[in-house]
Amino acid sequence: MKRRDFLKTGAIAAPAAALAAPAIAQGVIEWKCPTSFPSKAPGIGTNATTFVERVNAMADGRLKLKLYSGGELVPAFAVEDAVQNGTAEIGHGTPYYNAGKNSANHFFTTIPFGMTATEMSAWLKFGGGQDLYDEIYGQRNLVPFNSGNSTVQAAGWFKKEITSVEDFSGLNMRIAGLGGEAMRKLGVNAVLLPPTEIFPAFQSGAIDAAEWVGPMLDQAFGMNKVADICYAPAFHEPGAGLNVVVNKDAWESLSPDLQAIIRNAAEAAESETIAQFEYFNAQAFKALQDSGVMFKTFPEEVLAALKTAVVEVLDEQAAANPDFARCLESYNAYLSVARPYSAAFSAPSMLQRG
Amino acid sequence: MKRRDFLKTGAIAAPAAALAAPAIAQGVIEWKCPTSFPSKAPGIGTNATTFVERVNAMADGRLKLKLYSGGELVPAFAVEDAVQNGTAEIGHGTPYYNAGKNSANHFFTTIPFGMTATEMSAWLKFGGGQDLYDEIYGQRNLVPFNSGNSTVQAAGWFKKEITSVEDFSGLNMRIAGLGGEAMRKLGVNAVLLPPTEIFPAFQSGAIDAAEWVGPMLDQAFGMNKVADICYAPAFHEPGAGLNVVVNKDAWESLSPDLQAIIRNAAEAAESETIAQFEYFNAQAFKALQDSGVMFKTFPEEVLAALKTAVVEVLDEQAAANPDFARCLESYNAYLSVARPYSAAFSAPSMLQRG
Repeated sequence: MKRRDFLKTGAIAAPAAALAAPAIAQGVIEWKCPTSFPSKAPGIGTNATTFVERVNAMADGRLKLKLYSGGELVPAFAVEDAVQNGTAEIGHGTPYYNAGKNSANHFFTTIPFGMTATEMSAWLKFGGGQDLYDEIYGQRNLVPFNSGNSTVQAAGWFKKEITSVEDFSGLNMRIAGLGGEAMRKLGVNAVLLPPTEIFPAFQSGAIDAAEWVGPMLDQAFGMNKVADICYAPAFHEPGAGLNVVVNKDAWESLSPDLQAIIRNAAEAAESETIAQFEYFNAQAFKALQDSGVMFKTFPEEVLAALKTAVVEVLDEQAAANPDFARCLESYNAYLSVARPYSAAFSAPSMLQRG
Repeated sequence: MKRRDFLKTGAIAAPAAALAAPAIAQGVIEWKCPTSFPSKAPGIGTNATTFVERVNAMADGRLKLKLYSGGELVPAFAVEDAVQNGTAEIGHGTPYYNAGKNSANHFFTTIPFGMTATEMSAWLKFGGGQDLYDEIYGQRNLVPFNSGNSTVQAAGWFKKEITSVEDFSGLNMRIAGLGGEAMRKLGVNAVLLPPTEIFPAFQSGAIDAAEWVGPMLDQAFGMNKVADICYAPAFHEPGAGLNVVVNKDAWESLSPDLQAIIRNAAEAAESETIAQFEYFNAQAFKALQDSGVMFKTFPEEVLAALKTAVVEVLDEQAAANPDFARCLESYNAYLSVARPYSAAFSAPSMLQRG
């Protein structure tokens, strides 16, 4: 029952409120929520912002989350550690920033030539993905929720055209995730720079090519000021998941309704963030084209080589880590039916509008 | 503050609980929630079920929704009327079932050759769509929320192959929405049968062809027992929105946290239902193919004729209804940038996995 309900109840309001006040104060739960991203960055950061606002609005003072922007409370890549060790009760980021803890975390962000944002949500909710997510994150005393997705990304910004696999040889490129591992097999010197270092490194020539996210964020970070060739779509990130993680002890201390509020806020934030990327990527794609950026697709030969390299990377990871192998089996079981379905329904539905 | 918090607070619990009990009883809000669909029907009905469960779990007894299956409290197509006149406080269905009230409602379900589920969510949240939705539903004292989407549908089940536009002539077909109007221009006798009447009419030969939803629901309703040719994807329903409507007076009586709970539950249900269609459509597509169903695409000539017919229908509707014209302008402003974006990013991302 909320304080304002006491105030509405007339004669009994005064004594009840007087008695209840200390209990209400006792009942307020305040949690720290660091994110890996700048909290104002469109999509990735605003996903954290909207999640926190949604929880606070629904919990009406019973649970209060305080958001900390990337680096403010803990380093950007240390959010999950902070939640695990109790420095924060809840955190926000993306699983593959913690692939060093368990390579299977890649499945909860993205897999090259893998699932779209919608397919990933389908796998998590109906294909057994969430059970694996819960189990693997449970090893670190974390309760995970998918809270958003970048939707399909760009393959990256290049200063020179890629006409064959040979053009990758010796290329210094910023690229995240398992796609970077695949690129290495084709001769790329793949490096993972944190978001804020990508633009300066690209501009100074320290790197020759860079992928960041997609039109909306690439434009916001100024990639088009350094290069005018953008390859798309990404082979490596067909949709990167964002997440909320809760310290398991903190989670279990919550009443079921507050747990439901966190769970629903994450799913609602997912809907908002996917919509945000979809809307502003389309606007930015047009603006970038209008400003002279050339969007290109990799030649078939290059795509084929990347596919071979990706299969090798996935096999190697599966051989090295049983968690990765179990996730790969579950992931591929759905992907093998999702691929022909999307080729027969979703993709032609977009293309036939002409 | 919740009852269990009183019970936890020790010494002050007994008198506070004793005083608060009548106020808690007073504070419980019980709302009827009829849906247009059978409440167990996968996707369309379970969207209503999960929405109600989510609200009830988060509101923890302060707001209790009771779900009524299609036809149980009011006829399937009369849900919005019931919410408008106060027979129910909240309801569930799809806007184009009420296109007779305002033809602009089609924009909040689907438009032929229009937006995907994700694009529709993007338009509503970021492209001005929700403002139009609120305004047009506000005319009937309703507050609307997009709560789900069928994702891309099938074009329909046919007993004979469609090789040219002439094959449409005189065909008796069940088809919903503005796609039915376009089909009429090509000689189809388009009829809109309620869900439960489609299969019997198709089986008896009263209709020659029928579209219902997509693989998951078409299989569940037995369409493949009558015909073995399914055209896909739909031209007419690239993703049909489901909705929750609240009586405006009832809405305004809610505290902001309960309003936030309804809003978030609708968005979270949207995420779940899109995932459900995506997952089980893919499984059903495979099962239907394995059982001998032939999936085909309309010939280019037929698609071109349908496009021309759709443009005519949209122009006629816009000329007849200023609300429709305003929605069409807003819808097309985003669709015109969404189309090239999805053709360059989303569709090839699905197809390059091959």
